[in-house]
Amino acid sequence: MPDAKPGEFDLIRQHFTRPTRHTLLGVGDDAALLQPSAGQVLAVSTDMLVAGRHFLPDTDPGRLGHKAMAVNLSDLAAMGARPRWATLAIALPEPDPAWLAAFADGFHAEAQQYGVDWVGGDTTAGPLNLSVTILGEVAAAAALRRSGARPGDQLWVSGTLGEAACGLACLQGQLDLPAPARTHCIARLEQPTPRVALGLQLAGLASAAIDISDGLLADLGHLAQASGVAAVVQHAALPTLAALAERRATPLVDDALLAGGDDYELCFTAPAAAAQAILAAGIAAAVTVTCIGTIRAGSGVTVVAADGTVRPARRRGFDHFDGATCP
Amino acid sequence: MPDAKPGEFDLIRQHFTRPTRHTLLGVGDDAALLQPSAGQVLAVSTDMLVAGRHFLPDTDPGRLGHKAMAVNLSDLAAMGARPRWATLAIALPEPDPAWLAAFADGFHAEAQQYGVDWVGGDTTAGPLNLSVTILGEVAAAAALRRSGARPGDQLWVSGTLGEAACGLACLQGQLDLPAPARTHCIARLEQPTPRVALGLQLAGLASAAIDISDGLLADLGHLAQASGVAAVVQHAALPTLAALAERRATPLVDDALLAGGDDYELCFTAPAAAAQAILAAGIAAAVTVTCIGTIRAGSGVTVVAADGTVRPARRRGFDHFDGATCP
Repeated sequence: MPDAKPGEFDLIRQHFTRPTRHTLLGVGDDAALLQPSAGQVLAVSTDMLVAGRHFLPDTDPGRLGHKAMAVNLSDLAAMGARPRWATLAIALPEPDPAWLAAFADGFHAEAQQYGVDWVGGDTTAGPLNLSVTILGEVAAAAALRRSGARPGDQLWVSGTLGEAACGLACLQGQLDLPAPARTHCIARLEQPTPRVALGLQLAGLASAAIDISDGLLADLGHLAQASGVAAVVQHAALPTLAALAERRATPLVDDALLAGGDDYELCFTAPAAAAQAILAAGIAAAVTVTCIGTIRAGSGVTVVAADGTVRPARRRGFDHFDGATCP
Repeated sequence: MPDAKPGEFDLIRQHFTRPTRHTLLGVGDDAALLQPSAGQVLAVSTDMLVAGRHFLPDTDPGRLGHKAMAVNLSDLAAMGARPRWATLAIALPEPDPAWLAAFADGFHAEAQQYGVDWVGGDTTAGPLNLSVTILGEVAAAAALRRSGARPGDQLWVSGTLGEAACGLACLQGQLDLPAPARTHCIARLEQPTPRVALGLQLAGLASAAIDISDGLLADLGHLAQASGVAAVVQHAALPTLAALAERRATPLVDDALLAGGDDYELCFTAPAAAAQAILAAGIAAAVTVTCIGTIRAGSGVTVVAADGTVRPARRRGFDHFDGATCP
């Protein structure tokens, strides 16, 4: 495709070019050249973010840059891969230097924190659209696939659940939270923390993993299906912010925990014998890990209430072709 | 980011999933897993295509799928890299199974022809947007960079020039060509042939290369700038279709040759001593290669007419942020 021309080209170069740390040839040729590490395989993932669908159109560009990188890092975390390189293609209604500068700062701050070199890009006029492809490395045998869960495994999640969805509900006026909790939940929505360090700790230890971007029930359903097993979730075990735990009787909050999107936590499984090692992995990665259930023979996802009854699942996560808007 | 949900997910899987031939883990996990070849480096490029900007909105979806893959293959060709893997992210106004099926067929036919495994994707609702990232492999020392041209080198192009721009002019009613030439030019616009085989032949042989997607003058300008040299183009030497050569007095046709976008030919340089090997490379790759000028000390691109006078350049190629529409 046509490259950027001088004016546009300089604009992108000015804002996006940073020194690369482990790249043979960076941005500015027909392709970048990268040297893969011996003994590793490449993990590759692509995500596209559309204004009004994945983020509110007036989202702060710095936070958006952060998020565009973070959601891709989360995919690598779920594979147990070490992030290495990323490309970014942007369609923008018009070349807005201030917007691009802020976006690039957010994008690169997050990239730099996780050791990612930006190695390629494309910029064009069009409705606002961000497409990131991320490349990481992992030993083939240690990679965390969705398909490795086995009956008897324990089911775990990292961090806390439902906060991004509650942050969106706050922004949309559907939920009222005390100021600190509100701020926390909106930050979780707009500046998620990818669990890269935990993924690296879990590589070769967990039996299966997936990142929870569509909500726990939907993504755990993918994991169960890929593994050919059933997942049983203990409703009372789901970890969340105290301010949300107090409001779990509110359907919106309870739905957010079980099915809220944009929680870039990891859901993973491991044999019960690995429980101490999993807890140690969480400590090493500085993130809480919580056992929320078990894997059994069968299929599907079941949520069990504290009294042992099976709870109906109200929502199944977000479909990009339904009528919903962001996230 | 949120993955596709069952309905959408099945739609994409149904249309896009093909058996992979050299991929450890394909589509369906948080990331694909690829095994790089020993002794090679990775060449990575990303392109984004926007409806109304890079292609007419009513473009046949099969041809569009072909083109989305071909323009990325062209970037690898310009590096001398062997195509291996690609990801594709699509934003679509609505899930249109017939459109997706035709698009996927075109995309995969082109991918298959050049040995590319499709290893990842994302699909979302939004204004039509296609983002492809392609991965190839090349020996580091043989990779064709833009920066290797040296004074005294000969300047070459593959194939013929200006046909895609003339095809667009035909579609827009600005140019009248006899039926066979018109059909040929429109096919060149909508179904470009990436010069992958030639790029592989030129790896380690040419001193510099770039693909002509923004038009000869603009892209040769990038090559000259990256190499720190001047390029002198012999106007009379530019290769093109006979029906266009006959119309070179028409400014539109002459501009198309010099600056028309979407010609996915290679422009490359090589020492004069390599001329026989370059011609042999063209024969091996089944594409004509034409010496169109020389590289000198200095900077910029000069076009010299048959009588030795310097011609003014009317256009400098396409800027995605100017008021132009596709391509």
